[in-house]
Amino acid sequence: MTPPRKILIDTDPGVDDAMAIFLALASPELELLGLTTVFGNVQTDLATTNALRLLEIAGRSEIPVAQGARAPLVRPFGGPVPFIHGEDGQGNTFLPPPQKAPLGLSAAQFIIETVLAHPGEVTLVPVGPLTNLALALRLEPRLVEAVAGVVLMGGNALVPGNASPAAEANIHNDPEAADVVLGAGWKITMVGLDVTQQVLMTDAQIAALAAIPSAMARHLSRIVPFYREFARRRGNWGGIHLHDPTAILYLLHPELFTVQQWPIRVETIGVGRGKTWPNPQTGSSEEREALRPWQGRPPVGVCVGVQGEALVEIYLERLRHTV
Amino acid sequence: MTPPRKILIDTDPGVDDAMAIFLALASPELELLGLTTVFGNVQTDLATTNALRLLEIAGRSEIPVAQGARAPLVRPFGGPVPFIHGEDGQGNTFLPPPQKAPLGLSAAQFIIETVLAHPGEVTLVPVGPLTNLALALRLEPRLVEAVAGVVLMGGNALVPGNASPAAEANIHNDPEAADVVLGAGWKITMVGLDVTQQVLMTDAQIAALAAIPSAMARHLSRIVPFYREFARRRGNWGGIHLHDPTAILYLLHPELFTVQQWPIRVETIGVGRGKTWPNPQTGSSEEREALRPWQGRPPVGVCVGVQGEALVEIYLERLRHTV
Repeated sequence: MTPPRKILIDTDPGVDDAMAIFLALASPELELLGLTTVFGNVQTDLATTNALRLLEIAGRSEIPVAQGARAPLVRPFGGPVPFIHGEDGQGNTFLPPPQKAPLGLSAAQFIIETVLAHPGEVTLVPVGPLTNLALALRLEPRLVEAVAGVVLMGGNALVPGNASPAAEANIHNDPEAADVVLGAGWKITMVGLDVTQQVLMTDAQIAALAAIPSAMARHLSRIVPFYREFARRRGNWGGIHLHDPTAILYLLHPELFTVQQWPIRVETIGVGRGKTWPNPQTGSSEEREALRPWQGRPPVGVCVGVQGEALVEIYLERLRHTV
Repeated sequence: MTPPRKILIDTDPGVDDAMAIFLALASPELELLGLTTVFGNVQTDLATTNALRLLEIAGRSEIPVAQGARAPLVRPFGGPVPFIHGEDGQGNTFLPPPQKAPLGLSAAQFIIETVLAHPGEVTLVPVGPLTNLALALRLEPRLVEAVAGVVLMGGNALVPGNASPAAEANIHNDPEAADVVLGAGWKITMVGLDVTQQVLMTDAQIAALAAIPSAMARHLSRIVPFYREFARRRGNWGGIHLHDPTAILYLLHPELFTVQQWPIRVETIGVGRGKTWPNPQTGSSEEREALRPWQGRPPVGVCVGVQGEALVEIYLERLRHTV
């Protein structure tokens, strides 16, 4: 039996963040070494509180939490999205405060120490803005070689955005950090809207999730309805998109994804701020001015296709095995 | 019998520009009131020379030509593309100089005078950068009400660009002008890469075109092979995309297109410079900062679907009736 794959999840919980964290905890192939927190769906302090709460609900409060950046690398934070995730980030369930406290070191420092303690073994799984990863890269360039890889939820290659017509929310929240992270030259896979919008948990499947008697499933059954209401206002879709869980599902079942290797630049200004721009024209010998931004940029694994229905079934099956 | 529809073509010929102009001349439903010229595929002086040459080849040198802008509204011109259209813009066929000269007034002024002489009757058909139209709008705001409409070749709503990974060539050549033109509030339809890349003239159809004995078809049979070679280097495709002719085909057969009404902003800076960004989320009451660039912008008809094979057959049939 292969030892479990070591991961760190960088997160801004968030309803779908909770779903992703619980999926990781429900997966014996994965060993969650810690959670690091960031602004995004909620402010960073609340993200930390929620990370601690979620681990306690799961009975896994031995897993450490390190608090991360309170604002993007370069610009001010645009603010949280209580109309999507609730004022408390957990569907207005207003849980009691956690028993435990976060570590006394920053997310970036915790990422560096954890990765360097297990060279080549740790996969970073950011499902929020990429600020902590960009900071960690600037603090410790050896990170590029020391990680096993990076699998992120964020971006949109060939489909419209969700935070704006151009941009996906995580990248939109810190485009400069995303451009650093996607250009670092490490093994990195982008699980973006191109695929996450095809991983739809239907209302019937939400009901099936709510019928699972475990503590984790019970918490999800309380927080998902608020998130479902947002989807209903936005375009209905007949369910919810499993954005953050899809990054975890990629770790478990990469064979259910189609991935292209494309260099990416992130738009940091203008109306398209936060758009991830792939350059799919490979092998072109043209030296056009307009192609310069992509020159010398490393390839990024860009998920462009997915077997969404199979993945949602896998999600439910994992949660059915929780206690 | 309905009288023919009056049109002005603004053009930077260009192999596919020649194909578009000849299609217009071969269509009794259209009355070509003039050609105006602009930089793009070639420099403006050569565009004017080519416009005059094409009308003489077609035996229609009574149609006036007015020379337009030599550079974009705000920034310098990035330069012509001889590797696509030839050094002479006509597939390196190096035609003799034209007999006639252009009018003594600017393209923008000619557009204004022609439109105001026939209120509500003239459709503008720009198939190059939108500089002349933006200048005309700034010189004469009444143009918005006085045109019958605008049908442009340019932009990319839901597909990648061709001048860069983000942007289509015409819009990339003058994004500021495009943002003016797409925001002017007139009746405007964007015939962009979303559809023009689906209007593919195959090698067999290029051979069929070359077998037509008219002067127009003979000229096209000389200039198309150079353009075909570029397509071969870029990705082959089995033929050539009829970019500019598709705008004329839209005038003839709008029922073969699917059109969405979306507000558009044009990216004027950054790596996505020249991208046309639609906002397809209509009916949203959210007042998000990220949506502000689209607030108050008028809808643009955006072609998103097309019956490409039928259109190419129509193109050939029209040319078969030329003499």
